[in-house]
Amino acid sequence: MAKPLNVGIIGYGFMGRAHSNAYRKVNHFFDLEYRPVLKAVCARSADKARAFADTWGYESVETDWRKLVERKDIDLIDVCTPNNTHAEIALAAARNQKMILCEKPLAMNGEQARQMVEAVEKAGVPNMVWYNYRRVPAVTLARKLIEEGRLGRIFHYRAQFLQDWTISPELPQGGTALWRLDAAAAGSGVTGDLLAHCIDTARWHNGEVDTVTAMTETFVKERKHNLTGKVEKVGIDDACAFLCRFHNGSLGNFESTRYARGHKALYTFEINGEHASIAWDLHDLHRLEYFDHRDPGVIRGWRSIHVTDPDQPYMDRWWVPGLQIGYEHSFVHQVADFLDGVARGKPAEPTFRDAYETQLVLDAVLQSARDGKWTKVAQG
Amino acid sequence: MAKPLNVGIIGYGFMGRAHSNAYRKVNHFFDLEYRPVLKAVCARSADKARAFADTWGYESVETDWRKLVERKDIDLIDVCTPNNTHAEIALAAARNQKMILCEKPLAMNGEQARQMVEAVEKAGVPNMVWYNYRRVPAVTLARKLIEEGRLGRIFHYRAQFLQDWTISPELPQGGTALWRLDAAAAGSGVTGDLLAHCIDTARWHNGEVDTVTAMTETFVKERKHNLTGKVEKVGIDDACAFLCRFHNGSLGNFESTRYARGHKALYTFEINGEHASIAWDLHDLHRLEYFDHRDPGVIRGWRSIHVTDPDQPYMDRWWVPGLQIGYEHSFVHQVADFLDGVARGKPAEPTFRDAYETQLVLDAVLQSARDGKWTKVAQG
Amino acid sequence: MAKPLNVGIIGYGFMGRAHSNAYRKVNHFFDLEYRPVLKAVCARSADKARAFADTWGYESVETDWRKLVERKDIDLIDVCTPNNTHAEIALAAARNQKMILCEKPLAMNGEQARQMVEAVEKAGVPNMVWYNYRRVPAVTLARKLIEEGRLGRIFHYRAQFLQDWTISPELPQGGTALWRLDAAAAGSGVTGDLLAHCIDTARWHNGEVDTVTAMTETFVKERKHNLTGKVEKVGIDDACAFLCRFHNGSLGNFESTRYARGHKALYTFEINGEHASIAWDLHDLHRLEYFDHRDPGVIRGWRSIHVTDPDQPYMDRWWVPGLQIGYEHSFVHQVADFLDGVARGKPAEPTFRDAYETQLVLDAVLQSARDGKWTKVAQG
Amino acid sequence: MAKPLNVGIIGYGFMGRAHSNAYRKVNHFFDLEYRPVLKAVCARSADKARAFADTWGYESVETDWRKLVERKDIDLIDVCTPNNTHAEIALAAARNQKMILCEKPLAMNGEQARQMVEAVEKAGVPNMVWYNYRRVPAVTLARKLIEEGRLGRIFHYRAQFLQDWTISPELPQGGTALWRLDAAAAGSGVTGDLLAHCIDTARWHNGEVDTVTAMTETFVKERKHNLTGKVEKVGIDDACAFLCRFHNGSLGNFESTRYARGHKALYTFEINGEHASIAWDLHDLHRLEYFDHRDPGVIRGWRSIHVTDPDQPYMDRWWVPGLQIGYEHSFVHQVADFLDGVARGKPAEPTFRDAYETQLVLDAVLQSARDGKWTKVAQG
Repeated sequence: MAKPLNVGIIGYGFMGRAHSNAYRKVNHFFDLEYRPVLKAVCARSADKARAFADTWGYESVETDWRKLVERKDIDLIDVCTPNNTHAEIALAAARNQKMILCEKPLAMNGEQARQMVEAVEKAGVPNMVWYNYRRVPAVTLARKLIEEGRLGRIFHYRAQFLQDWTISPELPQGGTALWRLDAAAAGSGVTGDLLAHCIDTARWHNGEVDTVTAMTETFVKERKHNLTGKVEKVGIDDACAFLCRFHNGSLGNFESTRYARGHKALYTFEINGEHASIAWDLHDLHRLEYFDHRDPGVIRGWRSIHVTDPDQPYMDRWWVPGLQIGYEHSFVHQVADFLDGVARGKPAEPTFRDAYETQLVLDAVLQSARDGKWTKVAQG
Repeated sequence: MAKPLNVGIIGYGFMGRAHSNAYRKVNHFFDLEYRPVLKAVCARSADKARAFADTWGYESVETDWRKLVERKDIDLIDVCTPNNTHAEIALAAARNQKMILCEKPLAMNGEQARQMVEAVEKAGVPNMVWYNYRRVPAVTLARKLIEEGRLGRIFHYRAQFLQDWTISPELPQGGTALWRLDAAAAGSGVTGDLLAHCIDTARWHNGEVDTVTAMTETFVKERKHNLTGKVEKVGIDDACAFLCRFHNGSLGNFESTRYARGHKALYTFEINGEHASIAWDLHDLHRLEYFDHRDPGVIRGWRSIHVTDPDQPYMDRWWVPGLQIGYEHSFVHQVADFLDGVARGKPAEPTFRDAYETQLVLDAVLQSARDGKWTKVAQG
Repeated sequence: MAKPLNVGIIGYGFMGRAHSNAYRKVNHFFDLEYRPVLKAVCARSADKARAFADTWGYESVETDWRKLVERKDIDLIDVCTPNNTHAEIALAAARNQKMILCEKPLAMNGEQARQMVEAVEKAGVPNMVWYNYRRVPAVTLARKLIEEGRLGRIFHYRAQFLQDWTISPELPQGGTALWRLDAAAAGSGVTGDLLAHCIDTARWHNGEVDTVTAMTETFVKERKHNLTGKVEKVGIDDACAFLCRFHNGSLGNFESTRYARGHKALYTFEINGEHASIAWDLHDLHRLEYFDHRDPGVIRGWRSIHVTDPDQPYMDRWWVPGLQIGYEHSFVHQVADFLDGVARGKPAEPTFRDAYETQLVLDAVLQSARDGKWTKVAQG
Repeated sequence: MAKPLNVGIIGYGFMGRAHSNAYRKVNHFFDLEYRPVLKAVCARSADKARAFADTWGYESVETDWRKLVERKDIDLIDVCTPNNTHAEIALAAARNQKMILCEKPLAMNGEQARQMVEAVEKAGVPNMVWYNYRRVPAVTLARKLIEEGRLGRIFHYRAQFLQDWTISPELPQGGTALWRLDAAAAGSGVTGDLLAHCIDTARWHNGEVDTVTAMTETFVKERKHNLTGKVEKVGIDDACAFLCRFHNGSLGNFESTRYARGHKALYTFEINGEHASIAWDLHDLHRLEYFDHRDPGVIRGWRSIHVTDPDQPYMDRWWVPGLQIGYEHSFVHQVADFLDGVARGKPAEPTFRDAYETQLVLDAVLQSARDGKWTKVAQG
């Protein structure tokens, strides 16, 4: 029987559900030394925390995260709150020697992220950031194909994260469900929310980013604010695009927007190498497109790999060939890898340090967009 | 807090896992009066039953299904055993007034199915058959679009279920994992295993089948038998195709095989109506293709509906637009509907009676393949 | 300079245009010993013949095909008239020692086709039938991959030809543009018009058909007749499907209809072999889908081969990789192969004899649909 | 009978063929007042000019373009030579009062283009640049949908032109077939060759570009030069990407490369508007993808419009629904529109003036790439 690892989660929103589901499922499908025990959920509203606890089977509720991070019966703090609270909570959790899983982006900026890295490293606690898309099997496969050298020298890396849910000017900003539109809570718009994912994966696939030139735009300039009730200036970016150069000499092209009508969560990437290319998108996350120039001429073409065979990453744990998994499974995989890392004393990526590097790219992107200049990414 | 409904499951294989996962997840995502309690798992091997119970949290194990169906603390029997055992178990369960969920195909033939229907109807117990694909949201949506009259008069219904896992002559037949290749355990090959799904969905979408002309083929004539250790004649059909006429005047074309290289679980259907057409396949189960002739000419085309918006069937319970679910969720939906049906006293489909009609189509198909004649489907 | 080969074409409709375009283009792209010279077009209406001649550059017009086939300055007769006239014209042309290119299907039935074969073989004149889809480069490539043994043993051959242009009951039958709806002129409906193509290609790819079981349907039973002005019974089949067994032991599934809403000219085929599978459709005729099980596991998938590279059939004659050709080019290729065959004394396929075999399959299909019995295909 | 319009073409390469094919075909499919007469082809090599004339039916050959542009029997000069010769030829042709069709990009830079515009406008001769992709029916349809207001306010315009033919360092530069790799002849690499197309279409769809930030890269720094026989520095850009802002407030993202393994001529664009989005690519040029948010929720999805129906741009001139045309037809359409414009005294676009604006964007892109700064596009 797997050993208990007691989880205290802060936040009960979309990510609270996604993580809870992962904790509840992981031991049904993965053989692990540890099993997450849902010890406590924390939210400012006791009623909402209680309802969430009932649904997911959390044993207790808290309304003050400071109390939660001090509880002796908690091993791991899972931070699912708005971006502007990550640092304070994580620093406190580290002080209390808790393992920490933090939602992305890690922080409001690189400086905050640096402090968080210092805190967890000083405390020596396992830590990880929820850049979950690394664990979509097709995305993991992409990394594997690159590592095997199948692509050869990389020339181009492109990524997009396209949504369309904020086009209406009637949509307000701020408060529980819409804090992502509120610069005070979110820090930035699509840059921190969506491009952060693209950058995390790109760094994993293709190494560090060197310099960037970026532009941002806010299409709807004012929105009613849910907390004040007043129409206020919108401080976030609705769209952000940047070109960049990677350390390995390849060129990058990244773009994100919430104004791409018809795309709901269309995270895409494409990598062009000397010998082969790879493409993927989140709307059909169970497929990887792959072109290999070394195939014989007449049968050369883009292959649509249906990533469901048991020799594919993580897929031996699920069903049978042809039967797809979905979005939620990326979280299950991440929890499985984290628990395995704890057991083996070998941290699962991306750690806070890893996410700090991503934060420095985000900083450079936002600065370039403000200054209108090519900007060098700082080194973490 | 939802009321407990005590489940005893028989069989721990692929379907045992799929069902158990559904029982464990359903109350996290659906608001229901009942919640399944995993009371007991039954298998001939106590060790395997115990291991399965540990993984999934079943409270107890049994090695004799006869004992299980008599246990007072069990409300519902879930039959996940090979086809040749369904009838005996279900009859006993009905005698003991248990609710019954039975894997498909319901029985070895129509006559057996008829007895099972009689038994559950006489006992008055809720009953359902695991034709899970009805609850893939895109498949449910197809039914909705037909019911709304969007297609108009139906001219054509086509379905395929294509696999490629038995092409190697080295694959043996019989025993735990490969009973589907053993005629004694399975009754038939792809006809009962795969076409049964196609027929169930087709009947749901398009009504009853009238007459059929069929052919079957066994490409590999002999295989080693795992139980006897000898090379024995293969009694199942490797492939089956049939043409048919539906009661509504439309034409049907159905085909299934385990010899379609490159297709793993490619269940597809396409429906052509007077005004609109629909197409779907299981390899991208979160999409529905839809063509509507009433669209203005220059913007008329096949639409790929990414069935993830909250106004789509079941999808308000999951994530956000663009984030797909997978195979396993069809079982969650089916359990949710069943539990809801129990609460409301309104049985969820397909019931045993429904599956009996499907069995009669299967019987007609197999008879037509044997006789080489157009065959009328018997009425249940 | 290429030698002239004088063409007399009968019919100025859709096929008259497609062939004329091929004659006009072929020497611009192919190096050939012969060049077609557009000598005469024949049509009952002198005005229409004249207009067609003006557009395409035919040197003269005729209104009586009997005169055309006797003209000394004509080397080749191209038959683009309704099906019920093919035999008489071809027999006369053969008597006059003309080369003959005949539209498909070759004849109204096998018996007529047999006489036509006898006539051209007795006359010793080059002859060919316009089953143009063999010369779509992707279709030619499919044949090549099969011949190279890449698929291994073939298990399944499936083909469809789906249209939707006759769904409206208001559409009349008969006369110039709509003779395909008139049984007297067309012989059959989709069977001779569309399935003929599927069968021709299938025989080329997969060998002869042994036995068939078929069904046909006429959804709209009566239509106004353009020639009589009266509402008359519709004699053609609107839809036809058949299952079959090929000589090589593989199973066939063929279907055609003009009632598949959303499909305009969707000719598709899929071939499943032991090692590999192939799929193609006419709506994206420049692509071939190919799955090879011998690819390494993790990069195995269906490849979409964009058949535009110069090492693909015919494609060295056109543009550069990535730039697609279209429907009309299949006719150019067929003319090029025919002219090359004339120069080399080696006839291009499909000859009348070849098309006669296809006609015998059509006969068996229609007979099976009438009798409701499995029917053996006669041998030519 | 259409009136003759005498064409003198300079250059016999890829574009010489594409244009000649268009001249030969256009009157077979379009009813026009004028018909092109292939009067003369000009090339430095008399042998090559003669061979080309024989293939395409040009009546005469010239080896000095200066003589050609002075010939009294020539109405129209078609410039298909390398970019560095366009200006000189066009200026001379204008002086001789010839109509001029010029390959793209119009010139080596904006200044040259300005002179060419002045020359043709002073001479008052019809003039057009071969930005042929405007006349792919799906691309024309995109323009139509935008003009009809179906997209509403535009937020994003993205375009790519991806190839992979120069990845090998063994490929030389310069000379007949490879002048596109020689900066002296081509001016730039993918910027002038490929992005020029993207910019032309974008301006047509979305209006003028305001400011740009760009990067270029030359992956292979040295190549053997065919004219000198020596290894020389490569002066062209292998890849170019730029972000931009349009006058209408939308954001642009453009990228081109010859190092995108697996893409041969993958010109793509996507336009996101308030109500609807459009996407297209050249590898399946007969399709337009369209998403309309105003569709009812449950049947909302990206439509793949198979642009072959007769109500689509140009498609009433070709075959029947479902039967696709290809690359070459865009040139036929452009010739048809040009001839129609001549007859009606209303010039077809894009004129030299139009192409001059595109040239100014190219200049700004290349300057931004050199300077590393956001650059304003000059006004033509």
